[in-house]
Amino acid sequence: MDYIARHIGPDQHEQQELLRVLGYDSIDALIAAAVPSGILADGPLELPEALTEYEAQARLRELAGKNRVLRAFYGQGFNSTLTPPVIRRGVVEDAGWYTAYTPYQAEISQGRLEALLNFQTMVEDLSGLDIANASLLDEASAAAEAVGLMSRVVKKGRRVLLDARLHPQVIKVAAERARAIDLEVEVANLAEGVVGEDLVGAVFAYPGTEGDIADPRPVIEAIHDRGGLVAVDADILALTLLESPGELGADIAIGSTQRFGVPLFYGGPHAAYMAVRAKLQRQMPGRLVGVSKDAEGYPAYRLALQTREQHIRRERATSNICTAQALLAVTASMYAVYHGPEGLTAIASAAHQRAADFATALEQAGVKVKHAEFFDTVAVEVGDAPEVVAKLAQDGYLVRAIDATTVGVSFGEDTTDADVAALLSGFGAQPGAAGEARLPQALGRTTDFLTHETFNRIHSETQMMRYIRALGDKDLALDRTMIPLGSCTMKLNPTAGLEAITWPEFANVHPYTPDEYTEGWRELIDEIRSWLVAITGYAEVSVQPNSGATGELAGLLAIRGYHVANGETERDICLIPASAHGTNAASATLANLRVVVVKTAEDGSIDIADLDEKLAKHEGHVAAIMLTYPSTHGVYEADVRTVCDKVHAAGGQVYIDGANMNALTGIARPGDFGGDVSHLNLHKTFTIPHGGGGPGVGPIGVAEHLIPFLPGDPNAALDGDGGVPVASTRYGSAGVLPISWAYIAMSGAAGLRSATAHAVLNANYIARQLQDSFPVLYTGNEGLVGHECILDLRELTDQSGVTAADVAKRLIDYGFHAPTLAFPVAGTLMVEPTESEDLAELDRFIEAMRSIRAEIQDIIDGKIEYEKSVVHNAPYTAASVIRDEWPFEFTREQAAYPVASLERAKYFPPVRRIDEAFGDRNLQCACPPPEAFDITPEVVEETDVVVDEKNESY
Amino acid sequence: MDYIARHIGPDQHEQQELLRVLGYDSIDALIAAAVPSGILADGPLELPEALTEYEAQARLRELAGKNRVLRAFYGQGFNSTLTPPVIRRGVVEDAGWYTAYTPYQAEISQGRLEALLNFQTMVEDLSGLDIANASLLDEASAAAEAVGLMSRVVKKGRRVLLDARLHPQVIKVAAERARAIDLEVEVANLAEGVVGEDLVGAVFAYPGTEGDIADPRPVIEAIHDRGGLVAVDADILALTLLESPGELGADIAIGSTQRFGVPLFYGGPHAAYMAVRAKLQRQMPGRLVGVSKDAEGYPAYRLALQTREQHIRRERATSNICTAQALLAVTASMYAVYHGPEGLTAIASAAHQRAADFATALEQAGVKVKHAEFFDTVAVEVGDAPEVVAKLAQDGYLVRAIDATTVGVSFGEDTTDADVAALLSGFGAQPGAAGEARLPQALGRTTDFLTHETFNRIHSETQMMRYIRALGDKDLALDRTMIPLGSCTMKLNPTAGLEAITWPEFANVHPYTPDEYTEGWRELIDEIRSWLVAITGYAEVSVQPNSGATGELAGLLAIRGYHVANGETERDICLIPASAHGTNAASATLANLRVVVVKTAEDGSIDIADLDEKLAKHEGHVAAIMLTYPSTHGVYEADVRTVCDKVHAAGGQVYIDGANMNALTGIARPGDFGGDVSHLNLHKTFTIPHGGGGPGVGPIGVAEHLIPFLPGDPNAALDGDGGVPVASTRYGSAGVLPISWAYIAMSGAAGLRSATAHAVLNANYIARQLQDSFPVLYTGNEGLVGHECILDLRELTDQSGVTAADVAKRLIDYGFHAPTLAFPVAGTLMVEPTESEDLAELDRFIEAMRSIRAEIQDIIDGKIEYEKSVVHNAPYTAASVIRDEWPFEFTREQAAYPVASLERAKYFPPVRRIDEAFGDRNLQCACPPPEAFDITPEVVEETDVVVDEKNESY
Repeated sequence: MDYIARHIGPDQHEQQELLRVLGYDSIDALIAAAVPSGILADGPLELPEALTEYEAQARLRELAGKNRVLRAFYGQGFNSTLTPPVIRRGVVEDAGWYTAYTPYQAEISQGRLEALLNFQTMVEDLSGLDIANASLLDEASAAAEAVGLMSRVVKKGRRVLLDARLHPQVIKVAAERARAIDLEVEVANLAEGVVGEDLVGAVFAYPGTEGDIADPRPVIEAIHDRGGLVAVDADILALTLLESPGELGADIAIGSTQRFGVPLFYGGPHAAYMAVRAKLQRQMPGRLVGVSKDAEGYPAYRLALQTREQHIRRERATSNICTAQALLAVTASMYAVYHGPEGLTAIASAAHQRAADFATALEQAGVKVKHAEFFDTVAVEVGDAPEVVAKLAQDGYLVRAIDATTVGVSFGEDTTDADVAALLSGFGAQPGAAGEARLPQALGRTTDFLTHETFNRIHSETQMMRYIRALGDKDLALDRTMIPLGSCTMKLNPTAGLEAITWPEFANVHPYTPDEYTEGWRELIDEIRSWLVAITGYAEVSVQPNSGATGELAGLLAIRGYHVANGETERDICLIPASAHGTNAASATLANLRVVVVKTAEDGSIDIADLDEKLAKHEGHVAAIMLTYPSTHGVYEADVRTVCDKVHAAGGQVYIDGANMNALTGIARPGDFGGDVSHLNLHKTFTIPHGGGGPGVGPIGVAEHLIPFLPGDPNAALDGDGGVPVASTRYGSAGVLPISWAYIAMSGAAGLRSATAHAVLNANYIARQLQDSFPVLYTGNEGLVGHECILDLRELTDQSGVTAADVAKRLIDYGFHAPTLAFPVAGTLMVEPTESEDLAELDRFIEAMRSIRAEIQDIIDGKIEYEKSVVHNAPYTAASVIRDEWPFEFTREQAAYPVASLERAKYFPPVRRIDEAFGDRNLQCACPPPEAFDITPEVVEETDVVVDEKNESY
Repeated sequence: MDYIARHIGPDQHEQQELLRVLGYDSIDALIAAAVPSGILADGPLELPEALTEYEAQARLRELAGKNRVLRAFYGQGFNSTLTPPVIRRGVVEDAGWYTAYTPYQAEISQGRLEALLNFQTMVEDLSGLDIANASLLDEASAAAEAVGLMSRVVKKGRRVLLDARLHPQVIKVAAERARAIDLEVEVANLAEGVVGEDLVGAVFAYPGTEGDIADPRPVIEAIHDRGGLVAVDADILALTLLESPGELGADIAIGSTQRFGVPLFYGGPHAAYMAVRAKLQRQMPGRLVGVSKDAEGYPAYRLALQTREQHIRRERATSNICTAQALLAVTASMYAVYHGPEGLTAIASAAHQRAADFATALEQAGVKVKHAEFFDTVAVEVGDAPEVVAKLAQDGYLVRAIDATTVGVSFGEDTTDADVAALLSGFGAQPGAAGEARLPQALGRTTDFLTHETFNRIHSETQMMRYIRALGDKDLALDRTMIPLGSCTMKLNPTAGLEAITWPEFANVHPYTPDEYTEGWRELIDEIRSWLVAITGYAEVSVQPNSGATGELAGLLAIRGYHVANGETERDICLIPASAHGTNAASATLANLRVVVVKTAEDGSIDIADLDEKLAKHEGHVAAIMLTYPSTHGVYEADVRTVCDKVHAAGGQVYIDGANMNALTGIARPGDFGGDVSHLNLHKTFTIPHGGGGPGVGPIGVAEHLIPFLPGDPNAALDGDGGVPVASTRYGSAGVLPISWAYIAMSGAAGLRSATAHAVLNANYIARQLQDSFPVLYTGNEGLVGHECILDLRELTDQSGVTAADVAKRLIDYGFHAPTLAFPVAGTLMVEPTESEDLAELDRFIEAMRSIRAEIQDIIDGKIEYEKSVVHNAPYTAASVIRDEWPFEFTREQAAYPVASLERAKYFPPVRRIDEAFGDRNLQCACPPPEAFDITPEVVEETDVVVDEKNESY
């Protein structure tokens, strides 16, 4: 059977039924009506014939077989680690965990929110700082984010000091990103103290890239004296043995958590961390989980301080981070839960002991070890480093040529005696007696960590298995229901592709492995790049950006670089339609562009008159316009070419946000209808799962003239040529690319087109079936929407008091994840069913929405007050409807079983509606003590819950 | 961290707490007190050093790498198939599915019961017969079971006719098993008609092993004329194209469902099927799922006609089948659900077309094809078959040398054009035009199949993923709770071992691959055999038996063979203690031994006086005694050596049932204290998961003198030497052996001993904590139990009316799977916590049991009538406690939340208590129509549910 028939929800029979309701003879007729003919592609995409699932997996095995996995002793931010099988199977390979969306709907996300709170607690404890986020994209971008934070907080300096002892990719990315926001960058060995003035702060390496450990306190003191901030880039495992940055006075700590059980993945995805002092918490980038309470007063988790984030603050956001690395942060946190403080310390001590043994044996053989003190990495002085490296590679070992005469050897969790012997032989030495510890005594850890019971309770595999299952069961993901989130494209994630990512030949490859050993990976990446070129109509694609937002940044930096190269340095304005994703504006800000908003016309399209006005007003200063197509209103705008032409005529570049590529793929190509650059969200259209908030991949496609400005190699020289790198490694989150590879390979040109057409079909069916219950806000040609539709609740809110948020929460009782709330228009819900939902599931959603509409009508009709209504008090836990006392005017059955089908299988949320405001007023971002849960629930008839309408989600 | 510390629930701290409660200083002191010193092993087991999880997986990868996977075109009952990734990940690799127990507790097993009912419906439809079971162990033993059924039903004949066209292993196993019950066996080509008289029946091959298809009707007619029965051994995929056995008049159909998506697994595990006419249903062996109703009248699934089974009927049972192949039956049924009738037909047609193309191309090249008509297998006449086979093997293809001048090529689901070309070149031919169909027109399928909506509704991967999850969520397995089933040893199944079984280098190996290509598999099997030798103290071990019951049979056949070889043919009595597993007696019957029961003394041990009496009475006729040690009463009997000595002195052999090896491993060896043969349950002590009722592996260990009688090669000549084979392949369910391999490799001698000691520790803790609530029936030295304890409910039943079954059902409301019910003593519950449960989970169980005890006390105290009590009406669905009308005297909260911890996370069963008797009175064993579920539930105050106390479970 063709894969695409498995991917698409409606079968032939259902497709006919959907078309009948819409009044079209064929799906081609529907597309012809919905999509402006001017943008339609000429013919099918130039892609290979579609493979079956089995052929695709056979090809993936062939590619995997072309990698030779070297045992990784390279270090430089990526270390061998052992993923406990129970966590691999239970989290990384479990659909409940990986198909979940970002936990904006907190009531149905308590499981992953708890896991992420564990992550934050783990980082807070190990870093010794007050508050940690969950999570950042990688170590290098975390350093860039730290510098950005400093520059926002410390107003008077314009220079930043980067430790020369940081990993090269960290220096490169942080420096380039700092320069992009007009900071001057100084790179100096901070082990030797601080240089210069006018500093916003410094980033200190702990340990250094050569393994050496320096005391950060002198630097911290000196920077603080100058009014700056200090970020310590710390190896999270080393912090079990070394005193925490917080204890030593640092303001910020960053680093990677990869070595907490996350495979090397040829570079990513991995979760980076950031922790800060409390005073900096509102400036911290990224997502933050906090503890609040539900309508009965019970502790409940939610995303905290969202007003910092790009989806609310736009160009004033603390960062553009949207997709983070939730699934990997969960993995790392589970690793910490499973090992506990003693286990982690033992793993760190063993790695250190291996390093000490290795160094001692080298010294006994007369080989010089460069640094007397180190954690897990030994820098060895040799005659010809590349020769040593090459010889060991032939033996199956990957070590690092730090420079021409220095070889770095980093010990991870899986080192064996045989490994040590083999490595020593590469240096002409042999194993000897155990070496003495080489940690600096003055920096030995004296402070406790991971004392919370969560990290001290789960020691057996049975407990771990059940904990993972218990948390997963609290959440509602794609494996149980449609997630009709407009703009988020929660479609099927094909198992055939997902299976490949944990195959050892893909998962265990270090990102800095020489190309000769990674032929399979590079062939796969070349293929997917060429396919994305065919799909987008651009000249070249880079897969480096490890999120959509990073793709936006990379694209804007390319545009900026292009203008600068042409001497047009004054072009610094980015036009952004009012309806744009918040990320657009935040990304523009990170690229040091000024945001100018273009109005939206009444029909939801771009206001051409206003565009003309803005172009005229800012003549010579327009760098770019950022468009989303179809628009964030879910409509194919007829005049997109006109808009592109006008901006081009004004000397600007056109950035087409690929967020809605699920409505274009196989039908139209942004590179053809006016785009100069686009990012794609492989985690939307191209089936990488959302992972509860990441991983994501945000490749960018560019026209010919922008190729030189694509993201460069993060390990290139600091002042070399090439575009600004945006991730720690060349290929970013390479590890999940097999998923998109498989999807495209199994779909082929016709399959991709069919998927897009069915996405449009499904969205129009929902719009048609619900239009009598909830007006559809924007439509295009023949009253059709694109791949999503906006249901307008505003008039109903006026009549009944019921808000879009009430409806979102009430949908939980029907077993649904809510549509996108309040984006792009406040007071609305945006519904995107995707092509993967079948007719029965669409109808289940329609039934639920109509049922809620009837519940609203009861309020309008005066049968019940809004505050006392079943909608306003939703959702209901099982306990709340089973409790002997029943305080509501509506019945238990009305609360729990508004439609009959729920009686036999129903998801109950673990908490009732969460008090959003309480959580921010009483900020708590670490695991609460067990006693916090020993409460008698308040039985409340009315809630005074304030729901933040602004948690738009995509 | 050592694996064993992950495997064992209590950590050091908890262990101390458990010992404190029991009053012992150390775990060694506890073991010294509990275990008779006379049986203790001298020192640690001779096993290799324990490996970590990662070392074990590295070694498994090494072993896997030593297999060269040939593309399998061999056929002979094992065919290439493609497991849909969504089913592999969702079922085969999902802890919820594989850690579940056999669905005796039907209320918490509705998901897997539905999947198994789908399996039955699939078999019934394809076979055209009235009723099918779920499921049998493999094709060869299914044939043996069919012969057994015939011989039970047809009283007058003593001969059975086996089609010479059956696969050789089917003939061998069926013939040997038939001879074991004193049937004469005639092997003849039934395509040429029936020979002989005095027949109980015949087994007809459809198609034959060479691929040829003969019409079974003449044979059916002739046998029916003689008063016999006909079983058709049919290829399940072929039945989509060929008329069904039922339609053609057969009484029984059997076969393998392996090619419905189950990997080759080097021979197993795979589910075989059997379907029969309605008149034979009460004689059908194996497990049968039926539809009944719950306390509210809602359709509910349960195991039907259990009175046929060995755990109730003992020596009058229809078979000794206990562990079946539930997980593989579920996999095959999901494959049928996913593909539907059209998809399956398309797969069959494609395989046939490949075969036809292949045959046509051969003929065009002048190569002779032996049979004009065939389904998927082409028999090719060549000069030197082994030469052709060897050459193709070198090219990576596995085909079959049927005889010296005939090569068989069988086409499966994954054949490509390239495969056909490569195979043809092996015969000096090349691809040509498409061949014409070669199916016999007279046998073309005319009857419908899989018309039920379940097989016509789920076409997309999203639907399949959600269906699998929805069914899985209905069930309670080890991933959510302790399953404290006495005798069943529901311990942790280590993920590190489970991961290996689906690696292609293990999973895709055909069982008849030449040894030179299976070095890895054979090395693994040799290692596990040698380790089991060390663990049991026997001289040799065979892993062929694919269930514990099959191991029993193999062991008894070995004993029987030994006596016969010694000329002691009159030794045909098997002594079995009254407390023995029902399987023991059923197995003895299958081995044609007469069962004589030995009484149980008051303390639960064997009544020595009665033993003496029986030995005297049956002098010269005693073949064996079957003992379980520790006894099924959970106690280490002090005089086991005495019993063994007495039987030996009487000339009998001692069979020690290894069901309770979890109380012996590393501490004592049955081969040392008197056993001549034992079977082990690798799915109990050695961590193969129960899979909802299989797979299992039941290796037997034997003393030196019995080695010649171990199970022989099922492909050996019919009248050759060697023991009776009991499975289709040499190594039985080889595919799951990596799980036990990993467990032993990761535990080592000390780890295995520690696991056993902790099993005893945990059981004694529960016995001690519950003894004031429920008397513990049997104890041994110092009042200690072994690894399990029997809680005696009988006095409470007298006082209150509450039965052990009521308690079992009420435990569901507390989130527990019940302990073993009514075995070995009616009116009791047998609790085995295993070593894998931690203190918190033990305490959660103790809290639940004490709470239920208090609920019983309310009845005793007259506060509520038994019929109206919360215990008697248990369990409660969510809907039943949420319904607006509340008919009970106790409250909703008492029903649903008897202990506070349940309020935040609770499992609700999908149905209320199931009416066991109704299901048997109204037997329905296929999917009910959707309308059956459209009922208004009866709100009942009292139930008249009759629970069959006899569903003892192990």
